[in-house]
Parts: sequence; structure tokens; C-alpha cells
Amino acid sequence: MSAAAPADLAPGNRAAVLTKPHTIRIEEFPVPTPGEREVLVEVRSVGVCGSDVHYYEDGRIGGFVVRAPLVLGHEASGVVVDHGRSTHGLRPGTLVAIEPGVPCRGCTQCRAGRYNLCPEVHFLATPPVNGAFARYLAVPADFCYPVPSSLSADAAALIEPLSVGVWACRKAAISLGDQVLITGAGPIGLLTALAARAAGAVPTICDINPGRLARAAKLGLGLAADVRRVRLAELGPYDAFIECTGDLDVPGDGMRALKPAGRAVLVGMSAADELRLPLSVLQARELVVTGSFRYANTYPAAIELAASGAVPVTDLVDAIFPLDRAEQALQATRSDPSLIKVVVHPCEEADQ
Amino acid sequence: MSAAAPADLAPGNRAAVLTKPHTIRIEEFPVPTPGEREVLVEVRSVGVCGSDVHYYEDGRIGGFVVRAPLVLGHEASGVVVDHGRSTHGLRPGTLVAIEPGVPCRGCTQCRAGRYNLCPEVHFLATPPVNGAFARYLAVPADFCYPVPSSLSADAAALIEPLSVGVWACRKAAISLGDQVLITGAGPIGLLTALAARAAGAVPTICDINPGRLARAAKLGLGLAADVRRVRLAELGPYDAFIECTGDLDVPGDGMRALKPAGRAVLVGMSAADELRLPLSVLQARELVVTGSFRYANTYPAAIELAASGAVPVTDLVDAIFPLDRAEQALQATRSDPSLIKVVVHPCEEADQ
Amino acid sequence: MSAAAPADLAPGNRAAVLTKPHTIRIEEFPVPTPGEREVLVEVRSVGVCGSDVHYYEDGRIGGFVVRAPLVLGHEASGVVVDHGRSTHGLRPGTLVAIEPGVPCRGCTQCRAGRYNLCPEVHFLATPPVNGAFARYLAVPADFCYPVPSSLSADAAALIEPLSVGVWACRKAAISLGDQVLITGAGPIGLLTALAARAAGAVPTICDINPGRLARAAKLGLGLAADVRRVRLAELGPYDAFIECTGDLDVPGDGMRALKPAGRAVLVGMSAADELRLPLSVLQARELVVTGSFRYANTYPAAIELAASGAVPVTDLVDAIFPLDRAEQALQATRSDPSLIKVVVHPCEEADQ
Amino acid sequence: MSAAAPADLAPGNRAAVLTKPHTIRIEEFPVPTPGEREVLVEVRSVGVCGSDVHYYEDGRIGGFVVRAPLVLGHEASGVVVDHGRSTHGLRPGTLVAIEPGVPCRGCTQCRAGRYNLCPEVHFLATPPVNGAFARYLAVPADFCYPVPSSLSADAAALIEPLSVGVWACRKAAISLGDQVLITGAGPIGLLTALAARAAGAVPTICDINPGRLARAAKLGLGLAADVRRVRLAELGPYDAFIECTGDLDVPGDGMRALKPAGRAVLVGMSAADELRLPLSVLQARELVVTGSFRYANTYPAAIELAASGAVPVTDLVDAIFPLDRAEQALQATRSDPSLIKVVVHPCEEADQ
Repeated sequence: MSAAAPADLAPGNRAAVLTKPHTIRIEEFPVPTPGEREVLVEVRSVGVCGSDVHYYEDGRIGGFVVRAPLVLGHEASGVVVDHGRSTHGLRPGTLVAIEPGVPCRGCTQCRAGRYNLCPEVHFLATPPVNGAFARYLAVPADFCYPVPSSLSADAAALIEPLSVGVWACRKAAISLGDQVLITGAGPIGLLTALAARAAGAVPTICDINPGRLARAAKLGLGLAADVRRVRLAELGPYDAFIECTGDLDVPGDGMRALKPAGRAVLVGMSAADELRLPLSVLQARELVVTGSFRYANTYPAAIELAASGAVPVTDLVDAIFPLDRAEQALQATRSDPSLIKVVVHPCEEADQ
Repeated sequence: MSAAAPADLAPGNRAAVLTKPHTIRIEEFPVPTPGEREVLVEVRSVGVCGSDVHYYEDGRIGGFVVRAPLVLGHEASGVVVDHGRSTHGLRPGTLVAIEPGVPCRGCTQCRAGRYNLCPEVHFLATPPVNGAFARYLAVPADFCYPVPSSLSADAAALIEPLSVGVWACRKAAISLGDQVLITGAGPIGLLTALAARAAGAVPTICDINPGRLARAAKLGLGLAADVRRVRLAELGPYDAFIECTGDLDVPGDGMRALKPAGRAVLVGMSAADELRLPLSVLQARELVVTGSFRYANTYPAAIELAASGAVPVTDLVDAIFPLDRAEQALQATRSDPSLIKVVVHPCEEADQ
Repeated sequence: MSAAAPADLAPGNRAAVLTKPHTIRIEEFPVPTPGEREVLVEVRSVGVCGSDVHYYEDGRIGGFVVRAPLVLGHEASGVVVDHGRSTHGLRPGTLVAIEPGVPCRGCTQCRAGRYNLCPEVHFLATPPVNGAFARYLAVPADFCYPVPSSLSADAAALIEPLSVGVWACRKAAISLGDQVLITGAGPIGLLTALAARAAGAVPTICDINPGRLARAAKLGLGLAADVRRVRLAELGPYDAFIECTGDLDVPGDGMRALKPAGRAVLVGMSAADELRLPLSVLQARELVVTGSFRYANTYPAAIELAASGAVPVTDLVDAIFPLDRAEQALQATRSDPSLIKVVVHPCEEADQ
Repeated sequence: MSAAAPADLAPGNRAAVLTKPHTIRIEEFPVPTPGEREVLVEVRSVGVCGSDVHYYEDGRIGGFVVRAPLVLGHEASGVVVDHGRSTHGLRPGTLVAIEPGVPCRGCTQCRAGRYNLCPEVHFLATPPVNGAFARYLAVPADFCYPVPSSLSADAAALIEPLSVGVWACRKAAISLGDQVLITGAGPIGLLTALAARAAGAVPTICDINPGRLARAAKLGLGLAADVRRVRLAELGPYDAFIECTGDLDVPGDGMRALKPAGRAVLVGMSAADELRLPLSVLQARELVVTGSFRYANTYPAAIELAASGAVPVTDLVDAIFPLDRAEQALQATRSDPSLIKVVVHPCEEADQ
């Protein structure tokens, strides 16, 4: 019953709030009451994403501007501690991966199954919606996915970025035996490459940072190219190309490495907006270019990949911070490219 | 039997040859002997295409350079007059639409059904392969499609550009009720719009030439926009966008008029090659952009559309020239935008 | 505001209720109050469907059993007369086509865009959900589609069965130039054939009833086969086959008329359940067989087809009954195969 | 040069010929001369397939009847020893996997990329085309696929049945995280399950033979069900179902275990032909049922899967026979279900 909060809840909801660029404060809010179809989750692990760092540094990402104090964090997992009236099937104590974008469920996009394109989506840590750097979060029950007991809270949090990779692979129509070029060996590039490998494809991952290339190799991604030394267009040919750097010179170069009928998926975002592509290559090879925006219907597959070990998500975790050090977690992610994934444990701060 | 030419063939094969830019000469060649799986076609009608005009004027299109005298013309129909040993089913006297690109049939692209992307395709009037401005042509029997008796030779010739439109519609995944933006009301734009309408979609066609817009209206394309007065991005939103002008500013503008998950197909070619697209729009709406290159497996559908009257192909024919005036046909196409389609009748020159 | 009913509403909601098999009674209910995201619709036209007749006669269709009095009718249109708090965009006075199946919006099927497969769907006139043979109906606003002023209330009601046809065409992947076999020239078969023709395909429609074949011809469906005289397997070959009779002998026969890689869609339902298909034909031709269940995301396309005249829906309407003669409407549909579509006008009964 | 046979070829072409049911004779034929686009292959390994056993026992499979002496065997690999004039790229000494079905390359099916459905395909060991139980075979160069040096001749031969599995997975649209039901743990079922796993799916394999279930487990297929004890319809639900037994009771049962929108692919062939399926399940869940016939465009993917170790093909090989014991190889396959795959080594017979 949600009417009375369970006895063992902490009395307040401590959260890490971005009050202005470069400033995070720990504040305490009332514990939210779950709505009829919601559950209350005690947040256990939250990955730090590049978008969190952008908000922290610039107070904005493109058209999304932080105009009021904002709780960051959207790669989250936690344990169900309370629930609304109509949330059959999610019992207290269950560890869940939280899908952070809740769509309107009624628009053309939602009804067509493309709920990631819903114009009225509420997405955690996207202004003005508060995120998951908090002890408690109320979430629609159907956006909470129980994970097998073999998965840790950190693994469950990383289902979110793995979903980005799974979605990119779907958009790229990756299938058995495909040769796939992936540019960028950060967390999204690595998870995309691991998802592609899990789909029976052969990924080649590229970066200019030797440490990240070494990390890719350590993750078992045998084909890695240092693009300080090799030009993309000389690689391949590839069946698919997934761009994860956001560098606007890369899409055109990668396209030249594609086979006829090859697919290019642009995942990496850029503040500048002018993509330049070689029209004649696009036409003569009938390449298919698409952007990828978050994901839809990926959580079950991503959980399966993590649970089977096909994608060893926790191997990406390089540092863990308690809630009251969330700001250091953001700074570490920004400044140290050797840290692939930093996570925040909101429940651990109380213990310190 | 092909061993001996049928008695009623003309003694030589007169053809209109591009000997250098801006120069067409009528020359006589031996009548070709059809190979084992070929038929000999007496060419009855050949549409003049923008690519023919480019070769005539510049001696090249991008990487395709005319290095030796070249017979132009690839939108062709004719009557079977002779056949090789293994061409069952195509009887002399049959009017056929000729598919001008014959692929290798063995490469990865051919075997995957994408024979338009075959790197070894022989395509009429693409250097060094001679085209159809000639009295006779030997063609593989399976690239000749009998047309119903309701279709004229001109209609059969126009199956080729209609195929470009059908293919663009397939690449754009046009389906019932789709709103489709088509830029450019030249022959390809018009045929694409008519094909889209035949597929149950609602095409809006755009141009800057009032005569061509009027022509679109006359063809029953009720929604036409004069883009000297309206900005593309203000139109729509559309499910699909098919670009038929080759103007490099248009693709980005048209993309802004698309709905989420919209599809853009770039048909119009350009000498300049740098396509500039808004990355954020591509990503946030997950647009799909692809180039279209000729067509594959379209002739039966295109013939059906012409035969049923769904696409009134001959309404596009504005002028007819005999073979020895092929040069005037090229010049007229180049200089007069009100001529949508000019055709050459290679067999009529002898009569003059 | 929905709190107070608009002044000009009728004081009660008269409805035609199936109280037991073969018995319809007119009863009066309170006018429903629209919920927050609902509108109140004054029902103007309701088509009689075969399923209504089945419930009337047998009190059940397969597992769906009428256990309490049930209002029939699900092919409905009407005029918005009131609305809840959050239904922006649907103004009173708007004529709308009503999509009768409202899904849960949260399950795996809903979120994948297949809301027609939602296990918790509420569908009008499917026990225990009351249907549209009533003066007023409260409907979620996003399942009401405004229609252009060129469409009548009857046309708007027939968007529902036309949606079945559009969906069948989508499942059959109908495209330009396809040869399509459609068995059954009742309302669903005819609308499916008209939708296929609107999609640029060439439908052949079959029946054993000469009157229905004549009706098909009158609707412009030129290719019609009397299958008392011709065997299905001798027709064709076809790219697609859409079965609309429910006769269990027909699917196997129709499949034999398909080309390799042909698609068969089974729309017609049957009380008996054992479908018998020739395995070797399915395998050697790699045919694709699927069932079709209602529709999803079809209303905008169906409205477009009706509005453009591509599918002349009202040409199917053969008789109109007021609400208090709803029982006669059901009986007429059952007993007279020459009546393709009978409609009930719930608002007209008060005038009589 | 093919004009003169290379000096080190054996003087004759010994082959195992089925002269009548239950009778194999070793005979010697002239060494074939490769055509212009062919290579001559010294056959190194040939898997015994159930179809070979059927021809051996019954002299026929359905409509395919052995009317003249026939060399069996179509799962073949070998080393290139000679080549025709136009076979650039395949050097003598190269170990190749041989794709046994060579299509006409010109029909509608071939040009659409569905060359497995070509009505004029020549397929090894399908009457009247001789198969691969022979020392030498002339094969079109583009149907020979070089394999990496890590693969043995046996592995290269098993690319053929693995292709059947890859194709079944493609027809079933297997993707990341899918739950897949596979019935039958013979060679095709096991290879299909291994291919599905390599595609990131979770296969459950069923059989009634405990030895085969144990073998599945040994191959790492953790989810195996003994369907003597569990009913298929109680398993699941599954995203896809691939039937590999040919038992006509299984397809309907397996379909009941599918989720809405699930896909069923029927691979197993049957002498009886009447497939019985539950129509209401097909319709209410909109299941997609298709047959699978051989494969197209699968060899590169299958080779990649074998080479990467994702599918350990040689773990299926249980016995090896020289050419002059080909009959024992057929008998062993027929009589001992614990032998998953038996191979024949045509070149070894000379040494014995």
C-alpha cells in the first residue's frame, strides 16, 4: 500500500541537485508517493552519462536548457520499496532496471511503437524532469524491469546505455556475419560493439585514444583500428557503420567504407549541426543513413545480453561514488577518458 | 534463327553517334547478331533523358567520361525481329520495353537481388556501352518485357523513367495514405509523383517553374507548391520526401518537413557532391535518408501502372523526332523546360 | 466542461440491447460522462458487421460469450458533443470516425505498436464491453478521428471495415503492380479489394454468389472469378492472397495459386478451427501465411482513401435503419446476401 | 589453363553411384573439364544428409525420383585444382566450401535475390544432377567460397547444413534477446539452435531422444526439453519457433507456444503433406508461418560463424568414411540416431 510509506524508508529523499553550471548541492526532498500505476524505487546505482556532464558544464544540450535546479542521472537501477494500487507483479525487494523515458502512450508515434519519438516523453534528467541521483524515485511500474539475481545493481543501471547500443544495432539491421564499423570507443561505442558481436556480427572499433583501444581489446573486441594512423575510408568494406563520436567529419568518411546497400547509423551527437555527406556515394551505393534517438522496446533484450554474459556490462565500470560525491563523479567522467563508466550509489551516502 | 538475318531487316544499322561534345553524326553499323540468349530489337521509341543531354553537352557525367564515339539513348522500346537459340517465349513482332542495365548475374549484389548495384553492369549509353539511338539493338531476352497491346511504343519507352519513379517510391516505402513531398516537376519528379499517387499516397509536388507546376496540375497532381513563394520546411509534415532536382540545398530543407521516422530518398544527381544535412533533425526524428540508383525488378510493376492508366505515361510526351534529328531532340530537351519528355523514333528516319 | 452535460443533449441514452439470442430491446441508460481524456459522441451511423449477427444469433463467437445484456455495433461514427478536461483539439460539432478497440497502452504489444494484439483491449460490442447501437458513447479522444467535410456519417462509420481491408493489405505487403487474389466478395472482401486497387495492385476477387460478383464488377473490380466454375488453384499466379470467406477449404487452395515467396493473409474467421495447408507448397515456394486480427494505425490511411474517392465506401451501403429497428438491420444482414452493408442511425429513432 | 588437366590429377574420377535403392557402386568417370567460369575441385569432405539417405532407401523424395544412376552428396568442400578461363581470384590449392545449388540467374526469383526458389536450379545430388560423392567436381567459381585456414575440410563441408540453420534464423527474423523454440535435435535442429544462439537469441531445443538432448547440452545448448514429458504448448512463450522434425503434429503445437506476432518457420519436410494448424491462434496472435527451402546468400555468414568458433561445426562430426565405404556412411546415418553427422572423404579412398 502506498498510502502509508513502509516503515523502513529513510525519512527524506536526499538528492544531488545541479543548481547552476559547475555546482551540485545535496538537498533533501519529501519521499515521493507512487501514483496508481507507479512503484517507489530505492535507487541503488546510477551511471554517469556524457549528457549529465554536458548539463553540469554548460547548463544545456542544444535546445534542452536547465532553467531550474535539476537532479541529474538517468542510467538507473534500484529496489522496489513501495507501490501504487495497480502495479501487480512488482514485489517489494525486486531489483529493477529503470527505463528513464516515459512517453504519452497516445500519440501517433507511441501508437506506432516508436515511443522514443513521442514529442511529450518525460525523460529523467532532461529539463525540467528530475533524474535519478536521488535516494528514491517514483516510476511507472511498466518502465521497471526486474533483472535476474545474477545481475548486480551496477549491471542493472548499465542496461540503459546498453539499450542505446542494442537500438543502434537494430537501426543498422545488424545480422549474422555482418562486418560492422564502429567509430568511438567510449561507453556507447564499446557497448554497441559488444551488442553487435552478441548479434553474430564482426565489429571493428575505431578511436584515436590508445587507452580506449586497449580497453576495447581487453573486452575481447579483437578488431580495433587506431584512426590516427589509418583512414576510415581505407578500412572495410563494411555492411554497417555506427558512428558514436559526434565528430562531424566522421560520418562521411565512414560511409565511404561501406559496401553497396550498407547502413550508417549516427548515434554521436554534436553541438554543431551541419552534417556533410558525399551524395554520389550515397546514391551509387544506395546507402541508408539514419539517426538513432534513445531506444524503444530494448530493455528485455539488453537484460538478456547482460544476464547471459554475452555483454559483460560491469567490466565497463571503473569507479563508484556515493551520492554526496556525485559532483566528483561528473568531474572524473569529464576529465579522465580512461574511465569508461563511473557510477553513483545513492543509497551509500547515508552510510558514510 | 539468328544465323541468317530475317529477310525484311534493313541492310545496315543506322545510329546517332556522339562523336564529341555538341556533335551528333548519323552513321551506319552492321546489324548486330543476337547471342544465344539475346533478341534483336528494331527500336521504335527512345526517350531523351537528362543524362543524354549531359553527355551531349559536357562529354561526361561525374566519373563516366565519353572517350570514344558513343550512341546515346537508354529509354527504349522496340519490336523483336530476331532471336538467339535460347530465347523461348519472345516471338518476332512482340513490342517490348527494354531494361537498359544488364548486370553480371554472379556478384554479391546480383545474387542479393540488388542488381542495380552490380559493379559490372552494362548500361545503355553509359560509356563505353552504346545506347539505343539506333535502328537495331541486341538485348538479352530477359531484359525485354512484352507490353500489352494497349501500350504504344512511346509508352513502352517511358517504362524506363517510370521505373525510376517506382523504385524511388519503393525506397521511400510509400504506402496507403502517406503524405509525400516530391521536389522537382521534371519528368522524373512527375513520374515519381504519379507512381506515388498510384500507390495510394498523397503527393505534393514542388518546383520553381510555373509551367511545370501547371503541367503537374494538368496531370491531376492537385497538390503542387511553388517553392519560390513557400519554404519547403513550412510544408508538411510528410511521411516521405523524394528529391528529384539535384539541387544540394533541397535535401536538408525537405528533411525538415518530415514527420518523425520519415524517409527521404535522394534521386536527383549533382555535379557538386557535398550534401549538407541537419544532424539534429536526422537524429531527433530518426529520419531515414537513402540514395536511389536506377532500379531493380521494377519493369513488371511499371508496365502494369502504364497499362491500367494509373500512370498516363504518354501524357508526358511533348515532341517526337526521327533518328536523323536526334541532335535537335537533345537540344530541345536542354533548352525548353516546358518539354517534359522528347522521344526519338529511330525507325522513322528511313522514311523521311 | 464535462461536469455539466450540454443543454441540448437528449435526456437519456437510448440503446439497442441484445438481451438473449434473437432478442433486441430498446432500453434507456444514463448519458455517460466523458472521462478526463474522453469525448462524448452522439452516434450518427453504425455499420452492421457479421460479428454483430453472430452474437445476435448464437450469443457467442468462439471464446467470446455474451453473459449479460450487450449493446452491439462497433463500426461507428458520430459528432462530438462534449469532452473531458484534457482533450484539446476535438471541438464539439466535429464528425469523427470512432476506432472501437482501446488498448491498455502499457503492455509489450502496445509498446511495440501492435496494439491490436493487446490482451487487455476494450473493444466495442465484444462482451462485456457495450457497443455503439446507442445515442451516446464516451470514447477516448485519441480514438476519435475527425473526417473531412466531404465524408458523410455513413462513410465515417465504414472507416472501420475499410481499416480491416487496409490492414490485410499491409499484412500482405501489397505494393505497386502486385497481382492479388481475394476470396469472398462480402463487405470485407470488397473493401480489401478496393484498398488493394488503391495501393496500385491488381485484385482478382472470387465468390460463389453471382450477385456479389456483379456487385464487385459494379464497384469497378474488373477481375472477378466465379469459383463455382473455376478452381482457385488454376487462377494466378498471384503475389498475394487475402482470404475473406472463413471457409476452411479455401486457404490451401488459394495458396496453390501463389507465386514463390507469395503472401497469404487469412482474414475470414471460422467456428471450426482446423486449418489444413499443403506443407510442400508452403516450403518449396517459401510462402508466408499470417492471420490478421482487426488493425492498428490504419484510420488515417483509411480516411484518406475514403476522402479521395479511391475507395467509394458509401457505394457499399444498401440499407439504413433507425435505432428502434436495429433488430431488423441484423436480420436483414443475415438473410439477404445482396445487402453488402446495412447501417443503423441511432439518432434518427427519436424522430420517428 | 583448363585445356590440359594439371599433371597431378588422378587419372579418373571415382564416384559412389546409387544404381538402385539400397545399392551403391563405386564407378570411374572421366575427370570433368571446368567450363569458362567454373573451377575443378578435388572433393575433400562431404556430409551425409537425411535426403541422401532417403534417396538411398526409397529412390525418391516426394516428386524428385531417381530414374538413372545418381551420385549422392551435396554438403561438400574441396580444394581447387584447375579452373576455367574467367575465374579470377580462386587459385589452385584453395580450400572452398561448395554451395550446391546453382540457379539460372535470369528468372524473376533469381533477379529478386531469391535464387533458392529458382525453378531451374541445378542442385547437387538432386535427380538428375550428380552429387559430390566423387573425387572431382566442376563447379561455377562463384559458388565456391574460400574458407579461412583455421577451418578444416569437414568444417567447410558443414557450411552447407549450417546455411540451412542460418537461413531458418533469417526467415524467423531472429534478433537479440529473442526466445526461440527449436523442435528436433538432429543436425539441422542443432545447427539452427547454434546459429540462433550466435545471433544473440536464447534457443530452447526439444527432442524425444535422450541421447540427442544430451548432445545438445554438450554443445552448450543449456535449454533443452524432453517432449516425451513436457507438452510444447506448455513451454514458452517464444518469439520464434523453428520446426526441424518433419512431424506433422508439431507445427500446430509449437505455434501455441508463440507470443503474439511470433514467427514459425517450418524446415522439416514430410512425405505426408497435410499440415494442420489452429486458425484461431494464427489469427488472434497474428502469427507468421513460413516454409524454408534451402537458403540464399548465406555462405559468407555461415563461414564467419564457423571461423569465429561461434558455431563449432566439427563438434557435430561423429564418423568419417572413405569413398568406397560411402554406402556404410549412408547406413550408419540411417540406423544410428546418436551419429549426428557422418562425413565421407572422397580423396581418401585411393589411399586404402
